[in-house]
Order: sequence, then C-alpha cells, then structure tokens
Amino acid sequence: MITLNHLGERNWIKHMSAALPTRPDVVEGVGDDCAVVSTGGAHDWLLTSDAVIEGVNFDTGTAYQRIGHKALARALSDIAAMGGEPRWALIDLVIPPDVELVCVDDLYSGINALAAKHQVAIVGGDTAHASQLEIHVFLTGSVPTGRFIRRSGAQVGDGLWVTGRLGGSRSGHHLDFEPRMAEGRFLREWATSMIDISDGLAIDASHLAIMSNVGFLIRADDLPLRQELRKTVPYPTAIDHALYDGEDFELLFTVPAKRTLAFQSAWSHAGLCPLTRIGTASMDAGLVCLQMADGSIQACKAEGYDHFQHGG
Amino acid sequence: MITLNHLGERNWIKHMSAALPTRPDVVEGVGDDCAVVSTGGAHDWLLTSDAVIEGVNFDTGTAYQRIGHKALARALSDIAAMGGEPRWALIDLVIPPDVELVCVDDLYSGINALAAKHQVAIVGGDTAHASQLEIHVFLTGSVPTGRFIRRSGAQVGDGLWVTGRLGGSRSGHHLDFEPRMAEGRFLREWATSMIDISDGLAIDASHLAIMSNVGFLIRADDLPLRQELRKTVPYPTAIDHALYDGEDFELLFTVPAKRTLAFQSAWSHAGLCPLTRIGTASMDAGLVCLQMADGSIQACKAEGYDHFQHGG
Repeated sequence: MITLNHLGERNWIKHMSAALPTRPDVVEGVGDDCAVVSTGGAHDWLLTSDAVIEGVNFDTGTAYQRIGHKALARALSDIAAMGGEPRWALIDLVIPPDVELVCVDDLYSGINALAAKHQVAIVGGDTAHASQLEIHVFLTGSVPTGRFIRRSGAQVGDGLWVTGRLGGSRSGHHLDFEPRMAEGRFLREWATSMIDISDGLAIDASHLAIMSNVGFLIRADDLPLRQELRKTVPYPTAIDHALYDGEDFELLFTVPAKRTLAFQSAWSHAGLCPLTRIGTASMDAGLVCLQMADGSIQACKAEGYDHFQHGG
Repeated sequence: MITLNHLGERNWIKHMSAALPTRPDVVEGVGDDCAVVSTGGAHDWLLTSDAVIEGVNFDTGTAYQRIGHKALARALSDIAAMGGEPRWALIDLVIPPDVELVCVDDLYSGINALAAKHQVAIVGGDTAHASQLEIHVFLTGSVPTGRFIRRSGAQVGDGLWVTGRLGGSRSGHHLDFEPRMAEGRFLREWATSMIDISDGLAIDASHLAIMSNVGFLIRADDLPLRQELRKTVPYPTAIDHALYDGEDFELLFTVPAKRTLAFQSAWSHAGLCPLTRIGTASMDAGLVCLQMADGSIQACKAEGYDHFQHGG
C-alpha cells in the first residue's frame, strides 16, 4: 500500500502534475511560486493558493489575529517572489463548530489589516465546519506582461542574495512576518531568478538550482542570522537552523555579477529592507554547497519542510 | 458565548462582508455566485471558491473519482450561473495521512476529466494532511466585459425558469451532475437574473427575489420533478424535496415576459438541456410563494442548506 507519505510531497507533486489539463493561455503551471496566465493585455496574472492548518502551520491556542495575518502573508509572499502586485483574494474558512464569533472576528481582523495595507480586496470565499481550523487563501496578482521572475533564470556567476535575516522563525516570525512586497516589485528590474524561503534556505536554494540548471556556493559566514539565534545557539547549529528551519519568508534571488554595484546602489536608495549577498551560482548543476570559515566545502542536504512527512 | 452556529451562515456572511477591504477594480464582491473584477480589457474576470468536505458534502466511502468530479463541478456551476466561461483552477487538497496513492489518483482523474471537458487548466494548489478529506477548488473564469448575469436584475412580470429537473439529488445526482456551462453562456443573451440551485429552490429563489427586489409566484404543478421522485414519494413531499433539498445545481433565472416565445424558440434550436417555466416575478418584494393545483397560495419558507446548522 502506497500513501502520499511514502512518496513525499515533492515527488507527489511531480507525479500529479504530469496529468493535469492545461490551456494555451497558461504561461507557467505547477512548479513556481505562482502560476502565470496571459490574456494578451498589459498584465500577466499570477495565481496562488496557500493553506494554514491548525496543528500543522500554527499551534492550537495561537491568537486568531496572528493566524489570519499568517494565512494571507504566505500567499502574498508567493506574489512577491514573482515580482508581482497582489489584487484579489478569496478565503475558504474551515472552522470547528464551537469557535466563538469574536475569535472569527479577530481572525478576519488579521486578514483584513494586512489586505488593506497591500491594497488587496477580499472578494469572497466559502465557509464550512470541520474538526480543525483551516484558512485557505486564493490570491490573484498581476505583473507587467512578461516581467514576472521565474525560479529558472539564474546563470553561472550570478550573485545569490537574500532579504532580511534567517533562522529561528518558530520563535514567532512565522506568524508575524511582513511579506517582502516592495522588495519583490523592485527586483523585477534586477533578479534573474527568485523564490521565497518557505521550506528552508537549503531546499529553496536547491529549487532555484535545479530549475536554473546551476549550483550555488553559499558562504556560511555571510548568512544573515537572526540576532537571537547567534546568542542562544552554538554557531554550527544556528547555521543549521538558517538552512533547514523554514518559514523565513524572505526572498532568495540571483543578480548578474556585473550588475552588483549598480544593484547595491539602487537598493540602498529605495528604502527597502536589509540585504545580504550570501553566495554565487556555480556550474555544479542542482547542487547547493556551503563554504565554512576554514575554507572547507560541504554539500547541503536538499531537505526542508515536507507536509507529508511532518504534517499530522 | 456566540458561535457561528447561533448566527447562521447567511447572517455571518453579512456580518463578515461589511468589514472586508475592497479595490476600485472590484465590480462585485461577496454576494453573488462569483466575484467580478474588471481590468479594462475585453473580459471581466469571475472568481469563485468551493469546498467539499468529508462528512458534510460527501459520505466517507464515496468513490474518489466522484468526489473529484463534484468538487470541480460545484465551482463550474458558479461560473455557469454568471454566464461565464471557466479558465484556470487551483486545488487545495487536505487529505488524511493513510489515504492510498491510487485513491488520490482516482480523485484527480475525476477532477481532470471534467476540467478537460470544459477547457479548464489546473495550474496549481496546495496540499496538506488533516483528519478528514477536503478539496478546495479556486476557479477563475471570464465573461465579455459587462455581460455577466447578476442575481439582482429580475423585473416584475419576468418569467422564472429552471433547467433540468429538481429534487432527489441525494440519490446520486449531487455527485454526478454535469454543470450547465453551455446553458449559462447561452443565457447571457436572455436572462435578467440568474443563480445556480445549490441550497434548494426555495432559498435560492429567495436570494434572487431579495437581490432583485421582486417576489416570485411558483406554480407547484409546473415544477419539473425528477422521475424517480414522482414514483417513490407522495406528491406533496416530492414538492418539498424539490423546494428544500438542495444540490440540484440547475440554473434558476428570469427572462422578460415579452421575450418568452423568442427565448423558447432559440433555446429549442441550441441543443441545450430540458427547460421549464415554473413561475413569474411578482411585486411581493423578497417573497417566494407556491400556487398549488387547487389555486391556493402559500409562502415558501426561505430555508435551505446552512453549513453552520447542518455541517458537523
């Protein structure tokens, strides 16, 4: 008997995707942060969905407002990772029958505040009862035609960059993070490939590497670790956290080496978040390696969060 | 302590909708079969989401292929009810960990077959584990700009029509129905208001009545009851089934009285499904009444399926 657990999430997605019906107006189907469809106008359309589920993506007892914020923020981060602007969302709410109305109001206040901040209209959805709380967000965004950023455009020699800081998202960041919308839009002019870090730096860098047919050499000393991580955890473990923990929701992207100075200058004048160059695209197709302070190099395990291995 | 059960689904939607953020490009938000957004081109865009949940929308043990079919068919029916054409879908799959891969394959074969039939591309989604099986379908469609059919356009004197046959959907129709896509598109030229019957004729006619600020007088003898219903159930109960059972997924719509003959003629030449005129729009705003064979008139209860009252 084979279940999805045996296959693993990523193998199952590959298996399932092969049989999906498509249409000529689909530019990108399954496999990037958003699907892309083209209708011939000034914009391409970005489609993404994200689910947060009690006991998987948040603990029972988490404040409802933070759950609502996280649900929409995850979907927004997918739009950011394509260089897009969010527009319209539908919310499917699955809720245990005994949840009080004030809690649902709190949940929606978390969704609505973030939606208003990023000019997202909540235009509908569906509601049902079940035993655990779930929020499914379906988000549509736009990008000037042909200007979305794929995972697949990195070239050997490109610099590998990351926004913000990494690791320790479980201390609260995974609930309260602000999706990098302005940074994503800015990067339309610069990035050759981009992804948001949802499953962990190692696995998400590996996605960029495989899709772009390059490798990445990451310098351990350059990883922008969260301050509290440096303090509380021995150094090698802190790096492990940054590599494998996931839910950083930072943007990971590549920029051609010859544009480095112009890019850094433009970024510094744009009022955006902190930025770090952490490595370089190499010829080792599909491989992500870590260079330690002593010069030694080790291959990263292409591991990260798998909903079928860890979800319960 | 107030829960959503106390409030009821429709009251909660009204409560929640009031606070939702919107945008200038939103033509219709919450409250019709789909949301409508306009981006200035040749088409308006229709957005809808529908969830089917084990133990609520299908019984445990239902064949997976039929569950997949129903999940997409419900969302398609929403697009049909606006007069639209479906384009792209995302699927959020929530699945118990012990479900076998072959079952998930069957589920997707039900989705994919119906998608291919109606030129729908499945472009992505999300997958997670939980204790009961759920399929959330997010579907985007299109309609020539301004040509979508609202619930709110019925005028006093318009004929009230329904496609196909009503009642007894629980004997299997709710799993196997074919959404009325061709009929919905055809009705762009004719219908002044339209809805698909998901919660039951009585409640869905009441939605049309309230949104259009008219009433409806329905002739009991003209209701197109499913053949097996006429045979197996005493007549008054069969009508009750047709009024309150739900999940018929037929189109309920109004056509101006003066266009009746032209409409019937055009319909009969278009190769569409059976069609019945069941009543007339009246001046009793918001009220749906039933005229019995003996001429007596009774008000229908505006009752139908409520996910919070019946869902578990």
